[in-house]
Amino acid sequence: MQIAILLYPRITALDAIGPYEVLARIPDAELVFVGQRTGEIRTDTGLLGLTVDRTLDETPNPDVVVVPGGAGQFDLMADEPLHDWLRAVDAGSTWTTSVCTGGLLLAAAGVLKGHRATTHWLAMDELERYGVTPVRERVVQDGKYMTAAGVSAGIDMALTLVDRITGPLMAKIIQLAVEYDPHPPFDAGSPDTAPRRVVELLRSRRESVLQGK
Amino acid sequence: MQIAILLYPRITALDAIGPYEVLARIPDAELVFVGQRTGEIRTDTGLLGLTVDRTLDETPNPDVVVVPGGAGQFDLMADEPLHDWLRAVDAGSTWTTSVCTGGLLLAAAGVLKGHRATTHWLAMDELERYGVTPVRERVVQDGKYMTAAGVSAGIDMALTLVDRITGPLMAKIIQLAVEYDPHPPFDAGSPDTAPRRVVELLRSRRESVLQGK
Repeated sequence: MQIAILLYPRITALDAIGPYEVLARIPDAELVFVGQRTGEIRTDTGLLGLTVDRTLDETPNPDVVVVPGGAGQFDLMADEPLHDWLRAVDAGSTWTTSVCTGGLLLAAAGVLKGHRATTHWLAMDELERYGVTPVRERVVQDGKYMTAAGVSAGIDMALTLVDRITGPLMAKIIQLAVEYDPHPPFDAGSPDTAPRRVVELLRSRRESVLQGK
Repeated sequence: MQIAILLYPRITALDAIGPYEVLARIPDAELVFVGQRTGEIRTDTGLLGLTVDRTLDETPNPDVVVVPGGAGQFDLMADEPLHDWLRAVDAGSTWTTSVCTGGLLLAAAGVLKGHRATTHWLAMDELERYGVTPVRERVVQDGKYMTAAGVSAGIDMALTLVDRITGPLMAKIIQLAVEYDPHPPFDAGSPDTAPRRVVELLRSRRESVLQGK
């Protein structure tokens, strides 16, 4: 089983690394970081370099594809070669997945059309313009499509995916290995529970939060 | 405020990237990935490259230091130049922190001696040999020392650290920006809640889980 995680300049690191840390632990899985060019890309903050090991052309048939989000994706919303690759790999994949606004990129490529999906809470409305039904849940599965909410939700998605791929025992082994027993210090991770002031502040900075502008 | 996150070959990626994703969002913080040599290191799985941007010598006075864990640290448990750096930066830091078995590395350098700290649940006993009092909590603060349990606990630690550094408002803004509203699919992230079979299986593979052997 080959798992391809897409990287591109100005990605949000945790969108990719959360799923990586879980999925790389599936026995006998071959996980590879792919992108338009091999070599280093810098993340959305500019503060971290991640390595693309293989080009899209070299990765034509992954079984699982993971599309993370990040400010740089907004330069890729009409990138035909990338969209062609997404459609081609989706045609042969067992699972096509996204984290955060990576769901918008999959949607823009036409892959999620007619399906239920989720994305970052600030971007939820945008799914509709691509014919996708937005669902406000942490992880949404619709057939072979699995999409996660913002950034950190990729960890929950990846554990759910391990359950679907190999069953609950392996998912629990990996969850305990990475000690995923979250205790956030505040109950502020959802717009439903965060203080209104915090929600409004992020809404007012929506462009910079999502697109790094 | 300068935040230095240590990288070294065969690190566990999420130990470093969880805190990065939170701490990089503190306004006006300068976050830098440091290591013994600049350039690419590969993580414990061999499947991911991360970039070291600055050497230890170039980073003598960070305000916050974050020490992640990973199989490669077991080659560094007696590395004098690294331990000298850890002791030197600790002498000037506002916060000295670790994630997962990174706590053992701080302990081996003598930095945590006489303090309460935590680490990955499978490595808890080892803290004692360095004169550290092990505490089975997700995030442990003892003065300026903040240590996190295994791998994913670095996210909880980093949000706690943001609260201590800038107050709860910024911590909540960052938590909502990364939508950290965890919903693990199983209640298996702690040895207290995981099925006994899963706990025993990881105990029996302790060396390979912690040291990649």
